[in-house]
Amino acid sequence: MAELVKVVVDAMGGDNAPEEPVKAAVEAVKEREDIFVILTGLEDVIKKELNKYQGYPEERIQIVHTSEVIETAEPPVFAIRKKKDSSIVVGLNLVKKHEADAFVSSGSTGAVLVGGQVLVGRSKGVERPPLAPLIPTMEGVSLLIDCGANVDARPSHLVQFAKMGSIYMEQVVGIKNPRVAIVNNGAEEEKGNVLVKETFPLLKETEGINFIGSIEARDIPSGYADVIVCEAFVGNVILKLYEGVSGSLIKKIKGGMMKNLRSKIGALLIKPALKETLKDFDTTKYGGAPLLGLKGLVVKTHGSAKAVEIKNAVFQCVQFKQQKINEKIAERIQPPVKAESHQEN
Amino acid sequence: MAELVKVVVDAMGGDNAPEEPVKAAVEAVKEREDIFVILTGLEDVIKKELNKYQGYPEERIQIVHTSEVIETAEPPVFAIRKKKDSSIVVGLNLVKKHEADAFVSSGSTGAVLVGGQVLVGRSKGVERPPLAPLIPTMEGVSLLIDCGANVDARPSHLVQFAKMGSIYMEQVVGIKNPRVAIVNNGAEEEKGNVLVKETFPLLKETEGINFIGSIEARDIPSGYADVIVCEAFVGNVILKLYEGVSGSLIKKIKGGMMKNLRSKIGALLIKPALKETLKDFDTTKYGGAPLLGLKGLVVKTHGSAKAVEIKNAVFQCVQFKQQKINEKIAERIQPPVKAESHQEN
Repeated sequence: MAELVKVVVDAMGGDNAPEEPVKAAVEAVKEREDIFVILTGLEDVIKKELNKYQGYPEERIQIVHTSEVIETAEPPVFAIRKKKDSSIVVGLNLVKKHEADAFVSSGSTGAVLVGGQVLVGRSKGVERPPLAPLIPTMEGVSLLIDCGANVDARPSHLVQFAKMGSIYMEQVVGIKNPRVAIVNNGAEEEKGNVLVKETFPLLKETEGINFIGSIEARDIPSGYADVIVCEAFVGNVILKLYEGVSGSLIKKIKGGMMKNLRSKIGALLIKPALKETLKDFDTTKYGGAPLLGLKGLVVKTHGSAKAVEIKNAVFQCVQFKQQKINEKIAERIQPPVKAESHQEN
Repeated sequence: MAELVKVVVDAMGGDNAPEEPVKAAVEAVKEREDIFVILTGLEDVIKKELNKYQGYPEERIQIVHTSEVIETAEPPVFAIRKKKDSSIVVGLNLVKKHEADAFVSSGSTGAVLVGGQVLVGRSKGVERPPLAPLIPTMEGVSLLIDCGANVDARPSHLVQFAKMGSIYMEQVVGIKNPRVAIVNNGAEEEKGNVLVKETFPLLKETEGINFIGSIEARDIPSGYADVIVCEAFVGNVILKLYEGVSGSLIKKIKGGMMKNLRSKIGALLIKPALKETLKDFDTTKYGGAPLLGLKGLVVKTHGSAKAVEIKNAVFQCVQFKQQKINEKIAERIQPPVKAESHQEN
């Protein structure tokens, strides 16, 4: 049998806690024999949820009781410092102490990001750990790196994102020689803001990545690149606009279908086929966004994640551990050379 | 009769020149008596196109022959300097010399932006003229300001964008007390990159605008704000991703409809209603993006614009002149105070 992978699932995090995270845990251990789930959260509440299920391998689910819950609206740094006995802090500390391999949470993004960096800690040489969600495209998925909370990145950060993203797409998603592009306001090399102009030549020189140049936002949904490198503010705009435009457009289309009797009948006929198609383009489907470059794995799932997404994130963690992604990242990311440090302020 | 508004239409610009710009000119003078169109471009070519039409007021269309054409791929600054007898340079000079009120082109965005600033010139006090397209939302349209070629803006630029955008939406689009928001990576005031954090308090203090705070990209398509303020790199990402996501999604949906016989029949039934609905969400429909803050009006239409969009842009110019937008912008935009000038470098 394969080595057991221990994944902490935050039973208190997200809009659908504790129901969906607990359900995800049960389904994960049922489906795969190489998974052990630790649920962090209020023991009574978790036990009550677990009691709904029968016939699953109970010996591969453990509850670690925590008395506090970090709410989404709480200031992250403060919450991580004060709520030592929260499901997030305790979960991250289990990863830190190597008592678990990974932590998955649908809770406060800010708290998970801050906690991941402060508690689990950055790998040696990693300047800034990026949050990298998978986004749907016409051809499958692309990795959008960085969508984290730390904005105003430096060129050396973006170069590290390109390397980490390439390793992730190749080893976890299984795309050979993934195409790396930098988000730009035009296709030509001379385009860009100061950050992009400084980063572009560095990416061209970076060995071991398949850099294909600039990508205009228009071409992101078509699947033109596998690893889409950008600064976190821009990444946030891309991720959220993706959700916003597709959500609004689908609402519009549904409205259009209800316009008259003829279209209503048509809508009934195409509904099943359309539902299937639209699922492919749902950003929440690929719910697990890893926070890369840490000493352990931290995955943030969408706040509204359902059990299936959380379960998929748990499966990602197995792939992550088996492929030794952390080790590969640590190997490939060299500590920044001293000459660059004057840029920091 | 109302005062005649003179609009130059670049007959050589865009993917559909000369057919569509010439058609737009004919339809514009046919539909409204207060419009006079000057077509710039190769006289023979334009004449040949005009000969296709009859029964329109020929006395309100004038051809100004120009011997050169600026191609989309040409470096803008160089093209504007060298091709003095191009349809763009001649057209912009007509506005500069007050021989026309406005210039509309579907040609090279770069050349129109550079030419607008260099030839027509900025209004006194305007630091940077923004390109501000209207984008479709669930509630109508919003003004996305700035999507121009000059990236890395300063806070004072964004404050001016907010003022100019408010005037435009109120006076040209007819929205009373337009809501102004700044694009941010979170709804809370403490969120943002350096630029947004510095701009936010300035916008709060700015008199005469209806500042409602931050807008997350997710909420742009819902119509949460009328004037969406951002730096041009981010604006470019928003505009192009809008196009990219809706284009890809519509392709997906069409594919879904063709999945099986049942869905194909359904597709036939909903087609007319859906077509109507999707038109509302087409970014090219609102093709005219004004370059605000100049001494005359310059409007850039989409490279693939059809006659109807170019004609609508011409109509926008009438509204623009009648409402004395330039005068209002010049009145409201104060020259930057000296104390701010240390930020420039």
